[in-house]
Amino acid sequence: MKVHGVHRHTIEPLAGRRAVQVLDQTLLPHEIVWRTLDSLAGTAEAIRAMTVRGAPLIGATAAFGLSFGLAADPSDAGLAATYERLLATRPTAVNLRWSLDRVCARVTPLVPADRADGAWGEAVQICADDVATNAAIGRHGLALFRTLLEAKPEAPLNILTHCNAGWLGCVDWGTALAPVYLAHDAGLPVHVWVSETRPRNQGASLTAWELTQHGVPHTLVVDNAAGHLLQRGFVDLCIVGTDRVTAGGDVANKIGTYLKALAARAHQIPFYVALPLSTVDWTITDGIADIPIEQRAGREVTHLAGQNSDGQRTEVRLAPPGTLARNDAFDVTPAALVTALITEHGPCQADAGSLQRLAAQAESSGRRLNR
Amino acid sequence: MKVHGVHRHTIEPLAGRRAVQVLDQTLLPHEIVWRTLDSLAGTAEAIRAMTVRGAPLIGATAAFGLSFGLAADPSDAGLAATYERLLATRPTAVNLRWSLDRVCARVTPLVPADRADGAWGEAVQICADDVATNAAIGRHGLALFRTLLEAKPEAPLNILTHCNAGWLGCVDWGTALAPVYLAHDAGLPVHVWVSETRPRNQGASLTAWELTQHGVPHTLVVDNAAGHLLQRGFVDLCIVGTDRVTAGGDVANKIGTYLKALAARAHQIPFYVALPLSTVDWTITDGIADIPIEQRAGREVTHLAGQNSDGQRTEVRLAPPGTLARNDAFDVTPAALVTALITEHGPCQADAGSLQRLAAQAESSGRRLNR
Repeated sequence: MKVHGVHRHTIEPLAGRRAVQVLDQTLLPHEIVWRTLDSLAGTAEAIRAMTVRGAPLIGATAAFGLSFGLAADPSDAGLAATYERLLATRPTAVNLRWSLDRVCARVTPLVPADRADGAWGEAVQICADDVATNAAIGRHGLALFRTLLEAKPEAPLNILTHCNAGWLGCVDWGTALAPVYLAHDAGLPVHVWVSETRPRNQGASLTAWELTQHGVPHTLVVDNAAGHLLQRGFVDLCIVGTDRVTAGGDVANKIGTYLKALAARAHQIPFYVALPLSTVDWTITDGIADIPIEQRAGREVTHLAGQNSDGQRTEVRLAPPGTLARNDAFDVTPAALVTALITEHGPCQADAGSLQRLAAQAESSGRRLNR
Repeated sequence: MKVHGVHRHTIEPLAGRRAVQVLDQTLLPHEIVWRTLDSLAGTAEAIRAMTVRGAPLIGATAAFGLSFGLAADPSDAGLAATYERLLATRPTAVNLRWSLDRVCARVTPLVPADRADGAWGEAVQICADDVATNAAIGRHGLALFRTLLEAKPEAPLNILTHCNAGWLGCVDWGTALAPVYLAHDAGLPVHVWVSETRPRNQGASLTAWELTQHGVPHTLVVDNAAGHLLQRGFVDLCIVGTDRVTAGGDVANKIGTYLKALAARAHQIPFYVALPLSTVDWTITDGIADIPIEQRAGREVTHLAGQNSDGQRTEVRLAPPGTLARNDAFDVTPAALVTALITEHGPCQADAGSLQRLAAQAESSGRRLNR
């Protein structure tokens, strides 16, 4: 992905230092500010406060956080404490646990003096793998897009997405947006409906921004518009990312995803979920019963920040003083509403048997999965 | 309804003048400002700019607008021009046309010199009728609420609403909120989920405000939360207002209503629509084909106004500069998703036959309907 024409990753190691820089996503689209992370505390806070967000990027950032923590205390106790502290930053995205487990498996056998460097190396590898994984998701999604476009009399292919499952949520490419970028780069006519994604407006502030940077045609709509757009035939497919998929194919994703899936089903429009297999939680089946839903502060609903006419970041209050708000950050879309999961190993039906077969196939090609 | 403890109407004739005052709904909940309307131009602009909004209140306001226009030009040509100008202010709410037709029927037979006063008298009567109509809607809705509450093991009755179909959208009481106020006043335990209603946030700014003024327990949520709340059993019924119902029972209402209706159906939760019979457009049947959907400026999506920390009204930009936005103000919920229409003449199934029978019953009791 390019930022002002220069190819960048959302998280980049700083040469000669045990430190990374990350793009501060709380300031987009108004300011482009890179933050340096070089401590466990700073990394945990960056994840918690959503300076970085998106399931894959949370995982990659946490891997570096382990290295920072082990540089300060490489003992077994230090490793355990660092792991727990990072795991507690966000409850829903399972990539966080997957990434921490992967780094721990690498460094636990090492003598303490080697652990911080071992974690660093694994974190760098996680980032490289993320780039390759998302490129593969993009290729598989592109094939589906081509099929849909061939069946459509008039261009463009209208794609509805929610939240940000793009470059900004990963190290590069994105999950749901990877096929969009590949399609656009291949000259296919694509147009993206960007759902603004209240309360944090990741659609309006992040997805619209990165699509603009890449030159992909798009139109912003409020979250409320999805049913109307689908009803009127203005949407050819929905594609979203996810923070956790159960072994049965249930999908946790940003609050509001479920409403889009219901509307897509009502109008027989494909509803795709793009994910690396690291987003599958093989330990649970029933997403509604078993995926913890993060509850965030009501202030994210009652107040909102943007740029005022003087170019200053300003927070405004929307509701009457003292208004109580409930703020569930995610919802669960039952597997039955998902047309297909698009993974780096290809598309897959959202059911236990199909996921098991895909996993077995991935493992037979040398992939280690946390199941 | 009370504002700071004093009973008020949203539109009030000013003693001894051909003028009314209206509460400026674009400034709520941050400022309580009453605006004087005493001209056709000012009234048309107040409707267009949504100083007043809500289908019944738009109708009542337009009736006074006819009186102002006729005071300036009471000729047949003046009447026709005034009618057309007011009708063009908002395209979706059918109460506007109903109200204008009602006043025209009253004043057309009069000599020009009597027309402005005739229109004034009819406008006052429309307001009085609106209060009585909404009180009746409230009583019929209350009976449904009591039945649902009796079937529920644990209080309170959790009611999900969208946009503002309350006191502020009418002259008094509201449509969807009328039974809520009656239930609360009767001591029934009710709790309202207030959907913020992007892009203009009528839920956060208007519904939350008027429920606060009346002391009704409520919690604000983003529009995206409806599916999740319904899925988790946190909603016992949905109730909304409407801007136009077809003779077949299709319902046009604020964008996002359709998504809630789909989710309510998926979880077998009642979805009620509260309306005066003046909101029925007897000339059309197919809501998706025949109800015009107002397209508003994209700036309502990309920018948002609230109160900053200094108490000043401030507009902030949410999306990157130059972002295109589409802004359909309404959507259409097919009749099949509506559990019942709650009218001043009682509940009614949302289908052509039931509506015809209800209308015949209303007409047999002396009511004139524009069908």
